[in-house]
Parts: sequence; structure tokens; C-alpha cells
Amino acid sequence: MAYPTSLLGRFENNRYPTLRNNPVRSGCGEHSYRAGSNSDTMNFGLRMVSEPDQAPIHAITLFVGLLCACILIGHLLEKHRWINESTTALAIGLCTGTLILLTTKGRSSRVLLFDEQFFFIYLLPPIIFNAGFQVKKKQFFRNFMTITLFGAVGTLISFIIISLGTAQLFKKLDIGFLDTEDYLEYRAISSATVFLRLLSSLILGLGAIFSATDSVCTLQVLDQEETPLLYSLVFGEGVVNDAMSVVLFNAIMRFDLSHITSGSAIHLLGNFLYLFGASTALGIAVGLISAYVIKKLYFGRHSTDREVALMILMAYLSYIMAELFNLSGILTVFFCGILMSHYTWHNVTESSRVTTKYVYFCKEPPLDIEIHPDSHAFATMSLISEIFIFLYVGMDALDIEKWTIVSKSPGKSIGVSSILLGLVLVGRAASIFPLSFISNLTKKSQSDKIGFKQQIVIWWAGLMRGAVSMALAYTQFTRSGHTQLQENAIMITSTITVVLFSTVVFGLLTKPLISFLLPRKHSLTTMPSDLTNLKPLNLPLLANGQDPEGDMNGDPIPRPVSLRMLLTTPSRNVHHYWRKFDDSFMRPVFGGRGFTAHVDSLPTERIIH
Amino acid sequence: MAYPTSLLGRFENNRYPTLRNNPVRSGCGEHSYRAGSNSDTMNFGLRMVSEPDQAPIHAITLFVGLLCACILIGHLLEKHRWINESTTALAIGLCTGTLILLTTKGRSSRVLLFDEQFFFIYLLPPIIFNAGFQVKKKQFFRNFMTITLFGAVGTLISFIIISLGTAQLFKKLDIGFLDTEDYLEYRAISSATVFLRLLSSLILGLGAIFSATDSVCTLQVLDQEETPLLYSLVFGEGVVNDAMSVVLFNAIMRFDLSHITSGSAIHLLGNFLYLFGASTALGIAVGLISAYVIKKLYFGRHSTDREVALMILMAYLSYIMAELFNLSGILTVFFCGILMSHYTWHNVTESSRVTTKYVYFCKEPPLDIEIHPDSHAFATMSLISEIFIFLYVGMDALDIEKWTIVSKSPGKSIGVSSILLGLVLVGRAASIFPLSFISNLTKKSQSDKIGFKQQIVIWWAGLMRGAVSMALAYTQFTRSGHTQLQENAIMITSTITVVLFSTVVFGLLTKPLISFLLPRKHSLTTMPSDLTNLKPLNLPLLANGQDPEGDMNGDPIPRPVSLRMLLTTPSRNVHHYWRKFDDSFMRPVFGGRGFTAHVDSLPTERIIH
Repeated sequence: MAYPTSLLGRFENNRYPTLRNNPVRSGCGEHSYRAGSNSDTMNFGLRMVSEPDQAPIHAITLFVGLLCACILIGHLLEKHRWINESTTALAIGLCTGTLILLTTKGRSSRVLLFDEQFFFIYLLPPIIFNAGFQVKKKQFFRNFMTITLFGAVGTLISFIIISLGTAQLFKKLDIGFLDTEDYLEYRAISSATVFLRLLSSLILGLGAIFSATDSVCTLQVLDQEETPLLYSLVFGEGVVNDAMSVVLFNAIMRFDLSHITSGSAIHLLGNFLYLFGASTALGIAVGLISAYVIKKLYFGRHSTDREVALMILMAYLSYIMAELFNLSGILTVFFCGILMSHYTWHNVTESSRVTTKYVYFCKEPPLDIEIHPDSHAFATMSLISEIFIFLYVGMDALDIEKWTIVSKSPGKSIGVSSILLGLVLVGRAASIFPLSFISNLTKKSQSDKIGFKQQIVIWWAGLMRGAVSMALAYTQFTRSGHTQLQENAIMITSTITVVLFSTVVFGLLTKPLISFLLPRKHSLTTMPSDLTNLKPLNLPLLANGQDPEGDMNGDPIPRPVSLRMLLTTPSRNVHHYWRKFDDSFMRPVFGGRGFTAHVDSLPTERIIH
Repeated sequence: MAYPTSLLGRFENNRYPTLRNNPVRSGCGEHSYRAGSNSDTMNFGLRMVSEPDQAPIHAITLFVGLLCACILIGHLLEKHRWINESTTALAIGLCTGTLILLTTKGRSSRVLLFDEQFFFIYLLPPIIFNAGFQVKKKQFFRNFMTITLFGAVGTLISFIIISLGTAQLFKKLDIGFLDTEDYLEYRAISSATVFLRLLSSLILGLGAIFSATDSVCTLQVLDQEETPLLYSLVFGEGVVNDAMSVVLFNAIMRFDLSHITSGSAIHLLGNFLYLFGASTALGIAVGLISAYVIKKLYFGRHSTDREVALMILMAYLSYIMAELFNLSGILTVFFCGILMSHYTWHNVTESSRVTTKYVYFCKEPPLDIEIHPDSHAFATMSLISEIFIFLYVGMDALDIEKWTIVSKSPGKSIGVSSILLGLVLVGRAASIFPLSFISNLTKKSQSDKIGFKQQIVIWWAGLMRGAVSMALAYTQFTRSGHTQLQENAIMITSTITVVLFSTVVFGLLTKPLISFLLPRKHSLTTMPSDLTNLKPLNLPLLANGQDPEGDMNGDPIPRPVSLRMLLTTPSRNVHHYWRKFDDSFMRPVFGGRGFTAHVDSLPTERIIH
């Protein structure tokens, strides 16, 4: 039946129940298909939902179900100290991928398509924001110089080693342009310079991919409560590392083998400083604005929905603005998280803190009370994103398209994977140990120095390459996730291998390694950090003017009394003046913990008022 | 330069910084464009991020910024009692749309493309879940029969009136098939039956679109604290309405004008009962499973991240599963929300509730303490989704494509809009007033009856047609948001007009109307509902066995003593037995508020333990 298109097109897409199929589908099939076979372009008015419309619902259902399973099974396996949640999610992803592969007869292993944009735009920001929000600020800023050293110089060293190593590897294994006829053809029609640029782009791309520490993995493996120093060093390094990666990538873009001068090094440094400064400044600015706005506008309200919504949106705005301005969004949202936990959050929870404070007036001392100003909204978002990523990476690892291509030369793939893994190990060792030595030189106090055993843990804990590397590899070597070229497929499968191996093997061994290298010692330091939850309770009990945060780490800070001490403990000194500045200027303007306690002599006034 | 494609394709998508443009973009432009003009298919290794890749970042930044602005401006305008947040978001959306329209020189008014799937899959579930989570359960279940009556029968009446009215309207205004040459052409080649089916599909589609009450709008306009009865009636109706809409739509799909028998009515009823029952059962099942799992697995833990993540994921799973099984996801996630607030949430906050309870031991009675077990994560998600929707609807209203088509016959569009608006008013009046009369007949107590003034408010508050209607209209009359047909464009613009008018005018007038029709009366009943926040505090103070929830509404419930009372107060009676069953069986198994108080004779035991 040849109905005029315009008439039938009138009901161009008459499928109200996009998500809802007719439960009696067979009953209306007669209507649906009467319009003819070309129902794609000419939809009859009563056409039912077609299969492609329903596919995402199936996929989302399965994926959400798997996320639930990951949390549940991850919890059940928690007793086994070696297994962490990321490993569970990876394993479940792998199993599901295998099942899907068998069900679809080898067509695909994925439920949803992996999109690098999705990863960078939606999944990464909540994780990094939450890390900034929950990070122990004092620990972080005390080690700020070391962190920057590891993050900036260490990444550069890793990058150089992995790049140089990859170049050697390419020669040895005849990978790249050296064995294909493309190369000869290409050689014939092009100049050597262009070819070299292509080659260097590939090599340096690999260098950048594998020198990018995965902050997400670090969060999973190290425990802030157990090893606060190592956590802040390794995680902080990961954050700074991101800014450095941006700089390196931009440098690669403009890399010219024939023009390496000392000027380019200075340019690199300048770029890094600009990126680092601008990203940090943006994060701090957004954090302070949010604190000020919430303090001024919402003071004294009882509902916190709007404040929390505003916080989340502004934090996300900071990330997306940084990306828009070509800055490091990770660095921005990390500092935004720090500022928000220091000022904004306390303004938001002003009303609920009344409850918190009230507990203090009870005669009996609270025994097992945990006061968390319900910041679990961020932790929850972060957790879901993390599990999402690992689950997906697990499924993604069975990327049959690439494995099929690679299977033609299995030896090459294994070779590339193992050499890359080796380079990652060597590259990180070459940056951590010398830099720790340099860092130790600047510190007089023996307790501040990073011991050799701690260096090993830092080296080890930063070895994991995870979702960030995967996303980068896919962006670098595929076009919307697809490739037909053997070299690109090898790069993808090698990345998958390195990611799986490092996450599972290095990840599983991290906890045993820590308890082997640093036994007991850290279980003792757990106590003070646990007490942070009780801080608001202790606050009014402390002597006036004494800084509750400053004493949180168990070792009271000696105030500088001589010039020598001023020089040897610069960071502590800086911290002291920062506290003064914070108390006298920042907190009155932007709010924050303890601000109300400083204003009201009697907390009861606040409650009665 | 004609490089072989395969070689250049090696770096198929070499754009690591998907989100990161080179800050010195001009410096590498020479590399980027050397590959030739067909850079879309042949990407040179060093190609920079192209414009289409960056567009979403701009869009997301703008959109997130606007969301922040909506919350801020909405707060500033809060003092003006007439303006609600949805109106603010709509206005901001309209303004931004106008600006974008001017900037892009009339090309588009949208920042991001509206996708009906996105709306139904991601934005709607958190709103409905939060509504179920926060709804006053007792109020809701006491009025359950009335709500079902309004939701099921009322929707049917509205639907019939709007459909019949639309049919008349089509005749009067010569819209549809009656004036185009398509009609004649079509007539010549097809049978009258098929034509009638097409026509009826259009008419009934409109009926279904405009008989769908918008739960999201209702939430914005009515305040649960101020008018709990009206809120539960109108909102509950909206939820039941959704199930009815699915049934109606499915009925339309199989609608055959030549075969309307009494059997089809029974079939309709059967379908509705099946959908209603299955959706509710699924929601309850998922809610109970989540409660049980969290009670068993996570008892005694102190971190709540995993529990909350599991709750969110399982609630979402219930919605998406309902959609997968062609049930009403809204109904499912609503009941899941109710169950989760009744059982699961109390299991999650077991550890934080220790704090809450401890306050009770204080000698001084708490004066201004607000104890909210930090469920604001859900409220926040819901709020962001709501503002997102209204902001988008505002931008969407300036859909230049449709307005351009419609502008050729402005009279017709105005006619359709006003008649549709009139039909919505009449249709709702024809369902609310008779059904209220019927509902009142079943109630003996004068205080339980719905007064005429309250009926007016119910009628008025349910008039708004919002994002749901927009999404349905776009799905019904466009193909991925586009149409070139005048009739379809008129339907879209009419829907936009009705949505804007009803949301702004009806929405703004609702609060004044309520304070005019029901003055003072409800400000008195605010007190008891405010106390719900203090419930955990009061709990141990109440006499044993007495039900704290049952007395929350100020009027103590008379227990049935005679058969007559048993018949006249069946719902109260049911509630009484439900409480018994809940206390003796459900809570011990699934946990929930007050469960620990029943088990531990002394709450201190719990704390010390």
C-alpha cells in the first residue's frame, strides 16, 4: 500500500510509550506492520515501539543491577582484607562481559557503549570533588611541596622514561611503521619530518597515557585513616599529575623533533605554572563564592536541599569551567572540594550543627557517637561513579574487536604489554626514590622524612593504571571506540592488559605490602584520625585560642621560637599564620567550622535564639 | 596531499584532550589543517579538537550556570509568596532562550537538545522517588480510595471529555485531515476505517496528553506542610493517573472504532488493575528487599555511603525494571520510596540515630532542634531534576522551528490553545466535583468529607500541565524533536502555550487561591506536621503500645467498638491492623523506625554496645 508519505508522516513518531511497550504487543502488531515494510521512514500512526528504542532500557536495567551486585558482593568480600571494591567490580564486569559475549555469540561484550566524554564529564568530577572534600587538609598542605615535586617532576621523569623505552620497544619488536607496507608507501610520498612527527606522537602519547597516575585507583587502595601521610602523598601527586599531563599533552601537540631548545623547557615550565595556578585559583574562587553566597543568602534556614544542590552545581560548574578554559578540571574541582569542606559545608549545616552541639551539654560523655554532618551525599555519588568505572572497565576488557585483530600476532601483544608494565615500574621507581631523597634533604626532623619503606609503598601504590589510562588509550587509538588497524588494536589490548594486571595484582598486593612494610605503627595512628568525627564535640572543651585542628595529629606542633626553627619548619609556620588569617579574616567573611563558636560566647544563645 | 587513508587512519582519533583544548591553539593550527580539507574522515595525528567536540562543554557550562542562577534567584524571590521555583526557572529559561535565539540569529533557542528518553529515564525517577520518600504515609493511605478514584476514574472522565472536545474542535477549525489535499488523496486510496483510526489516534493522543496531571508541577505548587490533605489527594492522584495513562495509551493502540463493546471496558479495567497491582507489587518488593539486605548485611556499620548508594541504585532499578516490564515506573518508584522511608532508611541511619536518641537523655528539653536523618540527598537530587526540567521547558518554549511553521496561521494556533485550555478546565471539573461527591457519600464523619472549597483547590491545583505533557507531545507529534508538518507544529505550539499558561497563571494563582478559600485553618494544622521532625525524640516519652504515628494528626483515632464503626471507618480500622502487623512481623524482619526501641528496653544498651 503506497500511502502518501506526507500523510503518514503526520504521525511522524507516534510512539508515546517510549519506555513502555504494550503488554499485549501481539494484539496490535497487525496495525503496526500494515503501513508497509518501510516503516522506518513512514511510521504508521499506531506503530509500536521498535527494538532499538527498547535496547537502552534493557542495558540500563542490567547495568544498574550489576552496580547493586558490585556493592553487595564487595561488602561480602570485605572480610578478606586483600580484595577491594574495585577488584570486585572488575571481576563482575569481566564475568558479565564473558556472559554477554557468549549470549551475543561473540558480537559484543558491552552493555553500554563506553564514551570517553561521559567518563571525563560525568564520572570523574564527583570522585575528585569528594576526594578534595574528604582529604585531610592539614596533612595535604604540610606535604604540599613534596606532593608538587612528585606530581610535576615525577610525572616528567616517568614520561621521559616510558617514552624513551617505548621508542626502543618499537625498534625491537618491529611495531609501528617499520613492518607495514603503509610505511614504505608513506615514506615514498612524504617527508621524513612528518613521519617522525607521527611516530613521536604515538610514542609520546603512550608516555603520557602510562605516566598518568590513576587517582581513582589510589583512592581505592590506600586508606586515609590507616596511612594518612602516604594517602595524601600518593593521592595529591595524582591530582598534580593531572595538571602536568595536560601540559605534556599540549607540549606533544606542538612537539618538533628538530627544535628542542632550552627555551622550550622554560616554556614547558611556564605553561605548567600557568595551568597549575589558574586551575587552583578557579577552584578556590568558586569555593569561596559558594561559601559567601550560602552564608549570606541562606543563613538561618532549616531546609538544606537548596544549599546542597547549589554546592553540587557550583562544584560541577568549577570543573566544567576549567575544562572550558583548557585548564585542569581535576585540579580545580579538587581545590573547590577543599574550600567547600572548609567553609561552605559548615554554612550549609549550620542548622543541623545545632543538634550536634547540643549533645555536648549532656552530662554523660558520649561513648560511641559518630557525628558526621551528613556529607555522605558526595561520598555516595563518588562511590557510584567509582564502581561504575571499574565495572565498565571490566566489561570493556573483553573488547572482542581488538582482541580478534591482535590474536593474529599474540606474541607482539604480550611483548608490548610486559614491556609497558616494566617501563611503568622502572619509570615510577626512577622518579619516586630520587625525589624522596631530595624531599628528605629539605627536612630536618627525622619524623618528617619519608622512610625507605614508605618510599616503596608510595612507589607501589602509584603503579596502578586504571580507567583514566583506558579512557586516554581509547581516545588516542580509536575512533569512537572502533579501529581496524593492528597497531592501534595492540595498543588498546596492551593498555587493557596493563590496567587489569596492575589493578588486580598490584592492587591486591598493596594492603599486604603495607601491613608487611609498615606493621602496627599505622594501626596506632588510626585513633586520632578517628577522633576527627568527634571534633565538634571536643571543640568547646578546648582552651580558648588553642587550635583544635592543629593538634589533631597527635603530635602537638612546636611554635617557632627561634629563627632556626622558623627556617626548618617553614610549612608549619606558614600553617600557623594561615590559621591566624583564617580565623581573623576568612571565617568571619566566608563562615566555616568554629566560626559561630568564636562569635557566640555561649552556644546556648544560638540554640535559644 | 593525498596520504593513503589507512596510514593516516592509524591515528584515527588522536584527540586526547577531548575536553582540553590547547591553550596555544593557534600555534599548532598548522599541523591540524595540513591533512587537507577532508579532515573529518582523515584525521591527521596532531589534529586538534574540532568545534563539534567542544560544543557540549559550552552548553553544559551554560546550563549548569543557569541551574545555579535558578536556585539563587528562586531563593531571592521566595519572599514574594506567589512566585514558586518552577516559575522562576521557566522565566530564566525563556530569557536565556530569547538571548540564544538572538545570538544564533534565530537558528535555535536551546542549549542542549531535549530528549524525551532523558526526561523519562533520568529526570523523572528521582522526583517521584523523593515524593514517595517524603510523603506523609498515613495521610496518603487514609485517603487511598479517594486518590484511586480521582486517579483512575477521574483521568478516564478527563480523557473522554478532552477527546470528544478535540474531535469537535477539529471539525470547527478545519484542522486535521479535513482541509488538506492529503485527505482526498488518502481517501481515494484507503478505506474509511483506516482513516478513522488515524484520526482517532491523534484525537485520543491529545486526550491522553492533556489528561495527564503533572505530578512535578503539583509538588511545586502545593505544600505538604500547609495543606497535607490536599497535597496527598492531588499528588497521589497524579501518581495513580500515570498508571491510568499507560492503560489508556495501550487502549488507544488497539482502539477500533467499529468494535466498542462492553467487553473492551472490562478489558480496560482488567488491564488497569493488572498494571496497578503489578507496579505496586514491584515497588514494594524492591523496597522490602533493600530493607532486608541492608538490615542483614550492614548492621552496626558506621559508614553509610554504601547503604545509601545501594538504596539509590535499587530504587532506580525498581523504576527501570517497571519500564522494562511495561509497567508504570512512576507508580513503582513511588511505592518503593514509601517502603524505603518506612524500613530501609531507618536501617541505614541506625548508627546516626544513636546520636538522635542521645539527645533525649539531656535534661534540658531541646528547643529548636531539627532532627532530619539527612535524607536531603534525595531531596537534592529531586530539586535539581525539577529545576532542570522547568529551565529546559522554558528554553524549549521558544522552539523557533515550530513557531515559524505555525506563524502562517496564527489564528488556528490560538484557537487550538484556548480550546485545549478550556477542555482541560472543564474535563477536570467534570471529574473532580462528581467524584468528590461520591467520595463524600462513603464517609460519615463531617471532618473527613471534602468540602466544596477544598474541591475547588483540588480542581485548580491539578490543572497544571507541565514537563510530562511537553515530553508526551514531542514524542507524539515529532520525530526526534523535528517536524515540518503544520498540524504537528500546531499541536506542539499549542501544548507549549497550554503548559506555559497553566504553569505560570494557574501556578501563580494557586497560593493566593488557597489562602483565600482556606484561610488560617491550615496554618493551625501546620503545628502537628512540624512535629514530625521531632518524632524520634518524642518516641520514648510516649506510653508503651500507644502508636506515636497514629496520633500525629492532632485528632486521636477512635478505635472501632461496634460493627457500625467497623463499616464506617474501614480505612482507619485497616490502618490499626496494619500497625499491629507492622509492629509484630514486618519491623522485626525488615527494620524500621522504632524497631530498635521495641527490642531494647533501654536505649542506652545500644549506645554502650
